Amino acid sequence: MARSRTSSTIPLHLVLAPDGAGPVHRRLEQALRDAIRSGRLTPGSVLPSSRALAGELGLSRGVVVEAFEQLVAEGYLVTRPGGATTVAAGSTATGARVARPDVRLFEIDFRPGRPDLAEFPRRAWLRSIREVLEVTPSERLGYLDGRGVPELRSALSSYLDRARGTASHPDDVVISSGFAQGLGLVGRVLVDRGRRRIAVEDPSLDDSQAVLRAEGLTIVPIPVDADGLVVERLQTTDVDAVLVTSAHQYPTGAVLPPERRLALVDWARRREGLIVEDDYDTEFRYDRAPIGAIQGLDPDRVIYAGSASKVLAPGLRLGWLVTPSGLADELARVKTVADQGSPAIDQLAFADFLERGELDRHLRRMRPVYRRRRDALLAALARHLPEARPTGASAGLHVLVWLPPGTDEAAVVETAERAGIGLSGASRHAITPGPPGLVLGYGQIRESAIDDAVRRLTAVIDEVRGSTR
Amino acid sequence: MARSRTSSTIPLHLVLAPDGAGPVHRRLEQALRDAIRSGRLTPGSVLPSSRALAGELGLSRGVVVEAFEQLVAEGYLVTRPGGATTVAAGSTATGARVARPDVRLFEIDFRPGRPDLAEFPRRAWLRSIREVLEVTPSERLGYLDGRGVPELRSALSSYLDRARGTASHPDDVVISSGFAQGLGLVGRVLVDRGRRRIAVEDPSLDDSQAVLRAEGLTIVPIPVDADGLVVERLQTTDVDAVLVTSAHQYPTGAVLPPERRLALVDWARRREGLIVEDDYDTEFRYDRAPIGAIQGLDPDRVIYAGSASKVLAPGLRLGWLVTPSGLADELARVKTVADQGSPAIDQLAFADFLERGELDRHLRRMRPVYRRRRDALLAALARHLPEARPTGASAGLHVLVWLPPGTDEAAVVETAERAGIGLSGASRHAITPGPPGLVLGYGQIRESAIDDAVRRLTAVIDEVRGSTR
Repeated sequence: MARSRTSSTIPLHLVLAPDGAGPVHRRLEQALRDAIRSGRLTPGSVLPSSRALAGELGLSRGVVVEAFEQLVAEGYLVTRPGGATTVAAGSTATGARVARPDVRLFEIDFRPGRPDLAEFPRRAWLRSIREVLEVTPSERLGYLDGRGVPELRSALSSYLDRARGTASHPDDVVISSGFAQGLGLVGRVLVDRGRRRIAVEDPSLDDSQAVLRAEGLTIVPIPVDADGLVVERLQTTDVDAVLVTSAHQYPTGAVLPPERRLALVDWARRREGLIVEDDYDTEFRYDRAPIGAIQGLDPDRVIYAGSASKVLAPGLRLGWLVTPSGLADELARVKTVADQGSPAIDQLAFADFLERGELDRHLRRMRPVYRRRRDALLAALARHLPEARPTGASAGLHVLVWLPPGTDEAAVVETAERAGIGLSGASRHAITPGPPGLVLGYGQIRESAIDDAVRRLTAVIDEVRGSTR
Repeated sequence: MARSRTSSTIPLHLVLAPDGAGPVHRRLEQALRDAIRSGRLTPGSVLPSSRALAGELGLSRGVVVEAFEQLVAEGYLVTRPGGATTVAAGSTATGARVARPDVRLFEIDFRPGRPDLAEFPRRAWLRSIREVLEVTPSERLGYLDGRGVPELRSALSSYLDRARGTASHPDDVVISSGFAQGLGLVGRVLVDRGRRRIAVEDPSLDDSQAVLRAEGLTIVPIPVDADGLVVERLQTTDVDAVLVTSAHQYPTGAVLPPERRLALVDWARRREGLIVEDDYDTEFRYDRAPIGAIQGLDPDRVIYAGSASKVLAPGLRLGWLVTPSGLADELARVKTVADQGSPAIDQLAFADFLERGELDRHLRRMRPVYRRRRDALLAALARHLPEARPTGASAGLHVLVWLPPGTDEAAVVETAERAGIGLSGASRHAITPGPPGLVLGYGQIRESAIDDAVRRLTAVIDEVRGSTR
């Protein structure tokens, strides 16, 4: 630490970083910059001459001149015609360098849409990353095609046709950074084509509604009943597209029956409309084989959208679209403007992961785990909350539980959160206000913890109902 | 392979996948689905009874029933009241499962904005990924904060303050998927705030112009001279923000001198406007220390934007914004709607990579490499193309070469590409039509290959000039 005071100018309290931290002129620059930013050196202040400062700091004059020149070039210092160096502009101090935390944790986590992250196949994922870093030619780390890397588009096409019943060609697959982005890209293409109105299920995922609205689309709610989207209501609306969770409606869990699937495709053909199929968690189906995607019924009328968020982890931010022929290029253009394509190494690693059969292996391992949790949840609900009517339990990672009419859903969610229980209210997903309910995810909660968790949740519900009656 | 023909119905040529490919009912489903999609089974066709088909295929009847039920649920088959099963809807055949390739390769690659990808520190990157996969708690692989992970925001804040002269706090850092996305997020926030007009340098990166236009902003061109943006021209325009490449103007390579830096900040303060500082390649400066970011002069008026694309690899799709206080939350909301945050593992790995000093190490290693390439390029241009006037060679990874007036720039670029030489024309970046020129990147070309590459490029230019004169 060096202190200096010159009679002609201002006191400087310059703290130079230790020797290891780079050339001395850089350290002097940094110290001067810090002094200006912290307000210790105010605009207009005259600095000591380079000779004087060098003498006081025990540095060579050249070092000081170099530092002054750098700071003049950056606009911190100004050299006056007479030769004096003054401070040009100031800036306020910045605080300690610690960022706010980013994720919220709960002791009991019923928040839906989340798989068991402790089961993420880290070793297999690392193996795929290593493979990519070992064998991928350098040029593949450069700028990307907005459609995604061909390896992943091919691997996904095979996987989806096999596991999800799609009828896809790799050229019609577009990689996105998760489902939300994929939906946003679709929204933007619709708007670019002059389409303005899209039907959504009511209730449906609030985040998806927000994405579509952000793209400038008008949302037209279509009711959902025990069989999912009431397709006949589409006929009387003037929409260009419909977003549908046909295989497992969110949040009700309804499965669209065959006649409605066909009616939906028929609507799209006659209307020349688009079906956007959000196939978010259908890999997990417990009582029978998963229902194949509607996309397979008419690839020209359906954009199929999926992601790795439920089958692996949301943090991967990997999603995909299977699009009608020709639309992929349009989506890729929009994707390129949005972010120039998803990260190359992640895409290539996921392709390798799929090709090795790691996703199939992971799903085979997880299905019975989730099935047991679902069974435990249903049993616990029957025991502790017999008046609840759980729905949508045949697939996915959540059930919807309706609450007795008049229950203050928001108060339940809030009270539960204060008690360390994370969950989601049903009515946040309703466009037309609906009855109170809770969406209970069981992806993140151990089987052995479920009964006690439901017991504690029931206590919260009783507390809220008691206080509002 | 099983072939069947039934008298009462239609011929089926079902090819079941081999035994290893899953349960037999799934394989039968797939074979039937394929037959429907390929058009071999057309809508309305009546299928053999489950008993007959089971007999012909040598399968148990239960297997066939199960397959039929699945395909009924998916909408491919319909069960008629009388009990017959018919095909419900068809779909066209899809081609072989090979995706179009995604990247364009050149024998000689002068395309600008690309670092030497062969030098990407794969081993160090893998080490950081492995570290993340070994130590990161599971919940970090879940849904993300739109601002980015705190580890990376802190690491970048330290790095940028030290290496780029910013004055940042981690809470004001927002992680994006590359610079393009970051710029798009800024554009969207401007529009959300009712701002509509943004000044850009003329010429400037065409991709950035496209991103801003896509967000609905009106672009107001401001001329660039040998000292970069003509800041005084800002005074007479009615814009809310300005996008500027102050430390190394793209594509001219001009460096904004101190008085213009101060005038720019002064404009922003008086206008209450925003400066968006695109600091795209300033880590590479060869003849003196890099110029610090303007952001350091007034963190309340500048959004600083950077990315890993030039210092590491574009394929990483990692970018960052340092924003005025309070704006980070707004940008994070927009980022969340856009894609729910950038991939977690990549962000955490990059934080680890920075903390280990790997980026500093990589830059120290690459600076002399690029410096030698730049020197070789300037020497080769002096030798083969003496009438060219290269500019902007003091920093970055490219030089701009003006062509003799009247040269058909587009023809040069096209002819060069046909000759296996990739490069970029200057005029694609000009909003007001400008003189012909070439942007020559030297990030991807070996020092020893440069002289011959320039010689071949000169031959192309001579060819084009000869044919148009």
